[in-house]
Amino acid sequence: MHWGYFSKLAEPLLAVKSGDLVTIETLTHHGGDDYDLLIKGDPGAESVYHWTSTEKNVSRRGAGPTSGILKRGSGEGLGVHLLTGPVYIDDAEPGDVLEVRILDVHTRPCRNPAHRGRTFGVNAAANWGFHYGDLIEQPAPREVVTVFDLDATGRENWAQAVHSYIWTPQTDPDGIVHPTVDYPGVVVDQSKVNKKRGVLEGVRVPVRLHFGTMGLAPSEADYVSSIPPTYTGGNIDNWRIGKSATMYYPVAVPGALFSVGDPHAAQGDSELCGTAIETSLTGLFQFILHKRDALGETILEGLDYPLLETAEEWIIHGFTFPNYLAALGPDAQLTVASHANVDAAMRDAFRKTRRFLMNTQALTEDEAITLMSVGIDFGVTQVVDGNWGVHAIVKKGLFTGRNSASGNRS
Amino acid sequence: MHWGYFSKLAEPLLAVKSGDLVTIETLTHHGGDDYDLLIKGDPGAESVYHWTSTEKNVSRRGAGPTSGILKRGSGEGLGVHLLTGPVYIDDAEPGDVLEVRILDVHTRPCRNPAHRGRTFGVNAAANWGFHYGDLIEQPAPREVVTVFDLDATGRENWAQAVHSYIWTPQTDPDGIVHPTVDYPGVVVDQSKVNKKRGVLEGVRVPVRLHFGTMGLAPSEADYVSSIPPTYTGGNIDNWRIGKSATMYYPVAVPGALFSVGDPHAAQGDSELCGTAIETSLTGLFQFILHKRDALGETILEGLDYPLLETAEEWIIHGFTFPNYLAALGPDAQLTVASHANVDAAMRDAFRKTRRFLMNTQALTEDEAITLMSVGIDFGVTQVVDGNWGVHAIVKKGLFTGRNSASGNRS
Repeated sequence: MHWGYFSKLAEPLLAVKSGDLVTIETLTHHGGDDYDLLIKGDPGAESVYHWTSTEKNVSRRGAGPTSGILKRGSGEGLGVHLLTGPVYIDDAEPGDVLEVRILDVHTRPCRNPAHRGRTFGVNAAANWGFHYGDLIEQPAPREVVTVFDLDATGRENWAQAVHSYIWTPQTDPDGIVHPTVDYPGVVVDQSKVNKKRGVLEGVRVPVRLHFGTMGLAPSEADYVSSIPPTYTGGNIDNWRIGKSATMYYPVAVPGALFSVGDPHAAQGDSELCGTAIETSLTGLFQFILHKRDALGETILEGLDYPLLETAEEWIIHGFTFPNYLAALGPDAQLTVASHANVDAAMRDAFRKTRRFLMNTQALTEDEAITLMSVGIDFGVTQVVDGNWGVHAIVKKGLFTGRNSASGNRS
Repeated sequence: MHWGYFSKLAEPLLAVKSGDLVTIETLTHHGGDDYDLLIKGDPGAESVYHWTSTEKNVSRRGAGPTSGILKRGSGEGLGVHLLTGPVYIDDAEPGDVLEVRILDVHTRPCRNPAHRGRTFGVNAAANWGFHYGDLIEQPAPREVVTVFDLDATGRENWAQAVHSYIWTPQTDPDGIVHPTVDYPGVVVDQSKVNKKRGVLEGVRVPVRLHFGTMGLAPSEADYVSSIPPTYTGGNIDNWRIGKSATMYYPVAVPGALFSVGDPHAAQGDSELCGTAIETSLTGLFQFILHKRDALGETILEGLDYPLLETAEEWIIHGFTFPNYLAALGPDAQLTVASHANVDAAMRDAFRKTRRFLMNTQALTEDEAITLMSVGIDFGVTQVVDGNWGVHAIVKKGLFTGRNSASGNRS
């Protein structure tokens, strides 16, 4: 696993051929918020999280510096998601498109015998949330962790809250104090927080198992924070990226270098408070490589952003910056969040959807614009990931009445 | 009918008691875009649109000036929607809430015998559209009218395009030239536009019959443009405001003064190009008055914005300004569009949803914020109405596991 970044320099864990199926375990980076429920007894999770004053199994966490005076820790938490990978796809080259099919997704059961058949997730209403500077109750500001319980057998399709606590300063094994949620994998000392029971009593949150972060290594920088989504995917945080969904990504570096993580049990469009219900998941993935020369006259023609396909929809992802690394230069990873806004993401979603409809359905610009207004829904993907997102939902049913002579390429 | 404005000074057409049912015919304000298909032979529509050099049946169109030197015409097109009403609700007073149930909606069939069983609508990709300054094909800018055909019997649930044309300068009966779509009810001289056939060939747009504009007279000004939505409703342009939906509005003036219009056959979230498929509709409405003293401990407690309820959802409407008339002062109607942005609408939707969950489901602020992040979807209602909109979809199913002791007030 690599923690908090995508990197074209990362050593592949596995090389596969187009068509191969791979089962990938992913771990939530919020396990430390309740070690007993999310990590303890799980050898894989325990190993990844292992961190004492003398040993830290995954040292680098984020795309930031790893030496010198560190305020938060190695990598500086500039990027936070635990990612499994990268997977090297044979023959993938820049200009190609990688199709990733999510054939199955299931929860990672809790290994604590007291919770057989259950699993747990956490929501952190954190300092990067949309709400954070805008609280009406005291103390303000505050960060709140809510632990959720859910069925690990698939019998119940909802999650319920167990308890919550307000974050208090936590000291990590290296002696660094974390006054806020500012570095991933810090294990919260449960004796130093005040657990509140009975939160969201009786409220059932529909389960939407999905991967918040999934994508390829960009070419623009050696280490790229896992937080802002971009043209190669990453932290898109669209809850529709779950079982039976297919993602298409433009390949930016040789081998594509696919990684996946940030698993979520449930999330709403906007991911308002900064996180979803963060839980560990395992997925079955299939990789299909589309070479650059074969993209013409397909829905992948001209694709330079992450496209989602489900049985009934294409979903186009717009961001404040379609490629913030290119747009903002060397300091992009540090400055992107200061530019975040929904309006530019809406603009980007409009432009990409127009192009998608013109390229793949042979519509004129005027046809595309009218169709967007009368039959395509735009939603707020997320307002918390530095590079904010708006998505457009293009229903395939719009085109089922067309014959091939009409230019339908679906 | 009143055209282009809400007004506390408007003479009620009808007074009803709480509980009464009223059938209301509404007419599209885009009928002039294709008079033969949308108006001709329909006595009601012909009467409303009647305008010669000596007679103009509905003179005022908009909240702007009606005398002096007029650039566009009486009312100056500061507001464009044909509205039927107002309906006076007996005993309604400021501080009360008016519930409006939409019990049925049906299309208004074309009266042209050549089109028996059909009806028509138009989409105008117009100068106030999100796309307008951002076109990639020539000529740019341009405004495009697309005429849609749809079944008037309810057998087909889609609309299909018939033809389109680019707007050309049109001279109205008073001799004023309209180089763009800048005044409602101008009848387009079909010999002066170039009809393009075969547009959106084979594309079927799902029908979503709804009322784009529906609401009460605000108290802040005598004549209020029908374009920007506000706390008393108006031009919300949420396609979910159709059959079986219920709207709740805060009453701002005695009698509430309900009006409805801007009927739509279909629209996507964002209404990107400035209009939906604009067509005439008839609805059956029921009015229920909730007196101020009876709001406590109900979902209407503290309601100061238009709330939508369906069988499965509550939908909360945020705007760039929750009350732009109060926020922007005397010039509000002229300046609001220059402030339009999605970010502020998202902020407003967040704040209103938080309050809704706290007031009506007895959640703490922290519970409300977490629930919004993990289980509530935010979408882009519209980016074209001067005061832009973001809505939050609160599924009632979230709360079905609660017992009354948990504070459920649904």
